[in-house]
Amino acid sequence: MGLTLGELAVRFGCELRGDPAAVVARVATLGGAGPGDLGFLANPHYRAQLAATRATAVVLDAQAAPQCPVATLVHSNPYAAYARIAALLHPDPPATPGAHPGAHVDPGAQIAPSASIGAGAVIGPRCMVGERSRIGAGCVLVADVQVGADCRLHPRVTLEPGTQLGARVSVQSGAVIGSDGFGFARDGAGWTKVPQLGRVRIGDDVEIGANTTIDRGAIDDTVIAAGVKLDNQIQVAHNVQIGEHTVIAACVGISGSTRIGARCMIAGAVGIVGHLDICDDVVVTGLSMVSHSISTPGVYSGGIPAEPSAVWRRLVGRFKRLDALAGRVTQLERGTHGSKPGSKTDE
Amino acid sequence: MGLTLGELAVRFGCELRGDPAAVVARVATLGGAGPGDLGFLANPHYRAQLAATRATAVVLDAQAAPQCPVATLVHSNPYAAYARIAALLHPDPPATPGAHPGAHVDPGAQIAPSASIGAGAVIGPRCMVGERSRIGAGCVLVADVQVGADCRLHPRVTLEPGTQLGARVSVQSGAVIGSDGFGFARDGAGWTKVPQLGRVRIGDDVEIGANTTIDRGAIDDTVIAAGVKLDNQIQVAHNVQIGEHTVIAACVGISGSTRIGARCMIAGAVGIVGHLDICDDVVVTGLSMVSHSISTPGVYSGGIPAEPSAVWRRLVGRFKRLDALAGRVTQLERGTHGSKPGSKTDE
Amino acid sequence: MGLTLGELAVRFGCELRGDPAAVVARVATLGGAGPGDLGFLANPHYRAQLAATRATAVVLDAQAAPQCPVATLVHSNPYAAYARIAALLHPDPPATPGAHPGAHVDPGAQIAPSASIGAGAVIGPRCMVGERSRIGAGCVLVADVQVGADCRLHPRVTLEPGTQLGARVSVQSGAVIGSDGFGFARDGAGWTKVPQLGRVRIGDDVEIGANTTIDRGAIDDTVIAAGVKLDNQIQVAHNVQIGEHTVIAACVGISGSTRIGARCMIAGAVGIVGHLDICDDVVVTGLSMVSHSISTPGVYSGGIPAEPSAVWRRLVGRFKRLDALAGRVTQLERGTHGSKPGSKTDE
Repeated sequence: MGLTLGELAVRFGCELRGDPAAVVARVATLGGAGPGDLGFLANPHYRAQLAATRATAVVLDAQAAPQCPVATLVHSNPYAAYARIAALLHPDPPATPGAHPGAHVDPGAQIAPSASIGAGAVIGPRCMVGERSRIGAGCVLVADVQVGADCRLHPRVTLEPGTQLGARVSVQSGAVIGSDGFGFARDGAGWTKVPQLGRVRIGDDVEIGANTTIDRGAIDDTVIAAGVKLDNQIQVAHNVQIGEHTVIAACVGISGSTRIGARCMIAGAVGIVGHLDICDDVVVTGLSMVSHSISTPGVYSGGIPAEPSAVWRRLVGRFKRLDALAGRVTQLERGTHGSKPGSKTDE
Repeated sequence: MGLTLGELAVRFGCELRGDPAAVVARVATLGGAGPGDLGFLANPHYRAQLAATRATAVVLDAQAAPQCPVATLVHSNPYAAYARIAALLHPDPPATPGAHPGAHVDPGAQIAPSASIGAGAVIGPRCMVGERSRIGAGCVLVADVQVGADCRLHPRVTLEPGTQLGARVSVQSGAVIGSDGFGFARDGAGWTKVPQLGRVRIGDDVEIGANTTIDRGAIDDTVIAAGVKLDNQIQVAHNVQIGEHTVIAACVGISGSTRIGARCMIAGAVGIVGHLDICDDVVVTGLSMVSHSISTPGVYSGGIPAEPSAVWRRLVGRFKRLDALAGRVTQLERGTHGSKPGSKTDE
Repeated sequence: MGLTLGELAVRFGCELRGDPAAVVARVATLGGAGPGDLGFLANPHYRAQLAATRATAVVLDAQAAPQCPVATLVHSNPYAAYARIAALLHPDPPATPGAHPGAHVDPGAQIAPSASIGAGAVIGPRCMVGERSRIGAGCVLVADVQVGADCRLHPRVTLEPGTQLGARVSVQSGAVIGSDGFGFARDGAGWTKVPQLGRVRIGDDVEIGANTTIDRGAIDDTVIAAGVKLDNQIQVAHNVQIGEHTVIAACVGISGSTRIGARCMIAGAVGIVGHLDICDDVVVTGLSMVSHSISTPGVYSGGIPAEPSAVWRRLVGRFKRLDALAGRVTQLERGTHGSKPGSKTDE
């Protein structure tokens, strides 16, 4: 399928500089593009590739447009414009409505006629699947699960009892939603399990990454608001709340009962301890430990970049002797630094 | 189903202060409770909610009881008492004994008559499933797997060959038990796989979280003792041993051949390197790196709380110049601090 | 099945010191071995167990051989020799060629006659599975997937559309290959998904651990070169490239578009940020944050070992006051350290 630059300009609100009858059929990177390809420039990191591109046209902003050697579709938000055009040029393959004969659908489930259920999927009692939603092969909706319209569950997703998904929710393969929260009461030498009775409720337009896990609430629900985007291998513990449009990168762990505000951006492998309040518009950079509530929007960090090991070992040694170093400074300040034997041996 | 406070007091050894004929039907949070609900107070964090609760009764300890405006079930361990009452009020839905017609059970497997096997589950040759155990939809027990009585496997759990589970083991969805350990011998330019021939043996009353992975031993077995509780997305490498009643929070990684004692508590996202011995009764706080054996019970830490990024960057810069700072202190101690040009430029 | 030491010596190029007619039937640890068992010594850590071993024979190097009380198979690389012998003594159980009747194979898929497809596996349209490859129970190959010869997919692996595996690739249970990369364009208050159109291409002899996730490329492909070994619960983001024979331990996260060279060794729980270039022959120790490109081979570190919490809290306090400490040193250097009230209160 090809589309003319003129059509794209009109449809996506771009300013076209070039031949409106030229046709693009697919997207490509600036460096890899050839005739019929549409490139884009959103990250200044790749600007150097613009001059040599062989794309038929490039989506970019007004500032970069003059440097482009080929036709341009100019947009104030070229990445979003590119995303929409790419979705049009590369639509998802159509799904066949109905349940695959190898699916196991409980007679008490309600599946919309336009929904599709993949081979080996299991849809339990009282589950509801909305119009045009696609349940991938091997998914398990245990019981009392509600999936809204236009959702996409990739293969092998588990939705435990009571889980609710809004509309247009996408879940990558291997994700588990509604697993028991980690609640145990100390009881003599061992532990007694605390029944996990809440659910997981997920708003519209949420994306959930591969092998991400979201625990059901202990009593109240775990709640993921509309527009939240979760990457792969994230752990969301029981009773967590995440506000609208917050984006969380891979391998983040969020402990129980923590509330994260709206429009936050949490980078990869961050750990957030339990029972915290993180306000709206907080950015946390990679590998940080968030151990206190945050009430002021802004950027927070806690990771230390690696060094060559010999340097690093020396720094860690210095770090572990910081008490001694501070003591030496105090002695210098008091004029007593020669009075303790051994006080100069740290270097 | 409702139960009277009198019944609960007798059954769970609580002291009842209030009407023994009052009935509770479900549990609720102190803040969310209404008539017919049973609340609990175990964490002092929530004590402020006690005065306004509308619960019919609250489980709490003797110290908090006088502040409670409604009936109380007083217990010295209110969280454990609450857990048991909640399990009684909210029983798991009953499973239908037998194998779902969509399950694939090898004729050489032995399934107890009271066990249930979900749709799409695969039970391989010589597997044994004990009385009343529930194997969720889409689980795979590959071969020679033993599952004790009263176990609960949530959907899509994999038990690789030879895995043994004791009684009352609960495994959340997506967990993989018995995957190959990560063993490769350097061999010229590449690596030769070292066959992983051991098994995973899991004791009674163990809980294993969603998408947690436990590797089989290389030769001997990986062993998880009775009463251990593992949260989601934990990685347990080959030949690890974990002692009784140890509790490990989400996203922890334990490298090969490390032994962890009994009654330890490991918080989230801790990393433990291989071939270590961690003694009994060790507590490790979140995001710590444990790189040496621990022979003294106690609390260990290694995480640094995040700061606003501007502050953090400055601290990291200071950290990376600790050698220079220590050198300046030594020069001051020697009275030579003016002798090297540039020695004062660090601030 | 047993093999004589003479056969093993000839077949694997070992020097035999002992009776060539002696038979070994299985491998064992030095400490656990008995008659008929073959032990090995590759890690000096276990040398103390050599003197008391009751193995029939031990694989080891020439240096350790004289201390061995039993027959020896001497090899310059005893761990690799052991690995090959163990694979011979403990072969994988044979798979039955063909598709299990409970598998769902699309009529448009091409399955080699010697390949086996497990119960509940789903093989979608235009997928190809090579000779002798084994697709475990519950695996899902969505569409247009190519699996080379002699591959082994453990149960419940997902290969999303377009994924390509070379020959002799092993994938542990729960792994997801080809999930959507995490790409969203900011768009007003929310985010627009950027279609993820690339694939994952995996070379020969690659191993992929349990519950590891590898995202498809945004436009170009994510590429894992031949001989790479990935442990469990690794996250590989879109457009990452990993060079030949690189080994990565569990719980590592690699952000988008980063390139890792050949023969690298990345230890557990390392986090690598996006758009970096890591050259060949880099070693990164556990729990490090790699936030800059690395152009010099060598060993890099970034983790700080845990301490008893009281010590650690004090060190963290010192760390967070490094600015003040450096300022005090500067004042001492300037001879002004008595001029600011409070400057001595840090100890």
